[in-house]
Amino acid sequence: MESIKIKLTIAYDGTHYAGWQTQATGTGVQQKVEEALRALFPGAGPVHSSSRTDTGVHALGMVAHVEIPRAQWRMKPARLVLAMNAHLPEDIRVVSASRAAAAFHARFDAAGKQYRYSLWNHPALNPLIRHMAWHVPQPLDFGAMRQAARRLVGRRDFRAFAVNRNYPTPCTVRTLRRCDILRQGPRVTFVIEGDGFLYRMCRSIVGTLVQVGKGKIPPERIDEILESRDRRVAGMTAPAHGLTLWRVFYPRQGRQPARLAPGGPEVQRAA
Amino acid sequence: MESIKIKLTIAYDGTHYAGWQTQATGTGVQQKVEEALRALFPGAGPVHSSSRTDTGVHALGMVAHVEIPRAQWRMKPARLVLAMNAHLPEDIRVVSASRAAAAFHARFDAAGKQYRYSLWNHPALNPLIRHMAWHVPQPLDFGAMRQAARRLVGRRDFRAFAVNRNYPTPCTVRTLRRCDILRQGPRVTFVIEGDGFLYRMCRSIVGTLVQVGKGKIPPERIDEILESRDRRVAGMTAPAHGLTLWRVFYPRQGRQPARLAPGGPEVQRAA
Repeated sequence: MESIKIKLTIAYDGTHYAGWQTQATGTGVQQKVEEALRALFPGAGPVHSSSRTDTGVHALGMVAHVEIPRAQWRMKPARLVLAMNAHLPEDIRVVSASRAAAAFHARFDAAGKQYRYSLWNHPALNPLIRHMAWHVPQPLDFGAMRQAARRLVGRRDFRAFAVNRNYPTPCTVRTLRRCDILRQGPRVTFVIEGDGFLYRMCRSIVGTLVQVGKGKIPPERIDEILESRDRRVAGMTAPAHGLTLWRVFYPRQGRQPARLAPGGPEVQRAA
Repeated sequence: MESIKIKLTIAYDGTHYAGWQTQATGTGVQQKVEEALRALFPGAGPVHSSSRTDTGVHALGMVAHVEIPRAQWRMKPARLVLAMNAHLPEDIRVVSASRAAAAFHARFDAAGKQYRYSLWNHPALNPLIRHMAWHVPQPLDFGAMRQAARRLVGRRDFRAFAVNRNYPTPCTVRTLRRCDILRQGPRVTFVIEGDGFLYRMCRSIVGTLVQVGKGKIPPERIDEILESRDRRVAGMTAPAHGLTLWRVFYPRQGRQPARLAPGGPEVQRAA
């Protein structure tokens, strides 16, 4: 059956979901997205996402693809956003939709991801963002935290920052492109960007940096922690509700053959 | 009975409250604050706030004062923040507490207030801020909106922007000090500051400016609307959940006699 491929960008408040995937403990966002799609296109395939998020983690730029039978397809992608949002609960929104190349794959084509982690550093938590920021009331040494963050940026073996799951992770080397700490009054935002992330890696990084900020881990020890490749050596895992999948990066044209002419970083990443 | 006066700064998510005051339709924030205070100081008086907020309106900088019998007072103000927050629901937080002069009055001494109104201008509402931003999916003409906003700034009769209530409002002249429209991607923030506000004045201003942005009201008509002194001539009232009481301004020392030495604007405002 001939089908067309649609790329969706999805935002959700993860508070009331068991994460992206449905689990024994609760409904996943994926299931709600698939239900909305099938209300419009009964023959829509499964929704493949760039990432899985944990229980309570949010997303503003989750990317997914889905195949829809060509015979059922009868609207412009912009119209699809409105139609899907009419079928979705208000804590899940399709932000944009576009036709994708037949070969596009939301997970395999992703060239990188940006996560943002929010923390509220004041004796009293801002009640308006209590579902999306970790409350850390103690004073933090931001100089030490930034020093530690710089030691994480680059191509590193992040095994010490990954929670072991039951599936094998053959390679734990990842390239962290950014680990910035932004402050706006009591609001602290960690901008963490890399070519890929191990299980709970972002939350382990944030938890460790906060322990650096509290003076419990000296910033120089980051190198030792990385070398140990042992999760027990790194700091705590920050709570899920502060984390948001912010953006997924793709080469401009999806997977494509290397260009013959010299190109910028966009092309190099795609090759 | 001798008492001491405490100034409280309070933040709350107004989603689940009938506003500041308890009403037939539901519990008010004030009641929760008084319950928390009386759990600590059985003889605490009523809590007097700078403002009343409507059902669903939020606050990050609500100011209130309360009298506590001196015989029951036995902690530092900083400790009071933690103690009260232990007794408050998580959608209400005491942000700071300090001793105030015996003559201080949260409402009568307020020299001005700043409100902020959040709007999300994109076809899909950001699910993370759905309880604190008005969703306006249509494109808006921000040039026209800013032109209209400028016409509102200054000393004006705002009767056309006030919803009539059953109590008499003898004077409807107020000074609007700021009416700025800030944009950060799809997030639009109206910063509205003045010496005082009439009932639903902020929401009427925002609703009118959005109708200007949609091309339904030309910016020049603001002058006519002001002159009409008729609520029916102005635009719609924006929904409550986008509005946050951001800050209440006080002269540095509360009510005080005019200083003899020349002073800056702070002193002039206090005089």
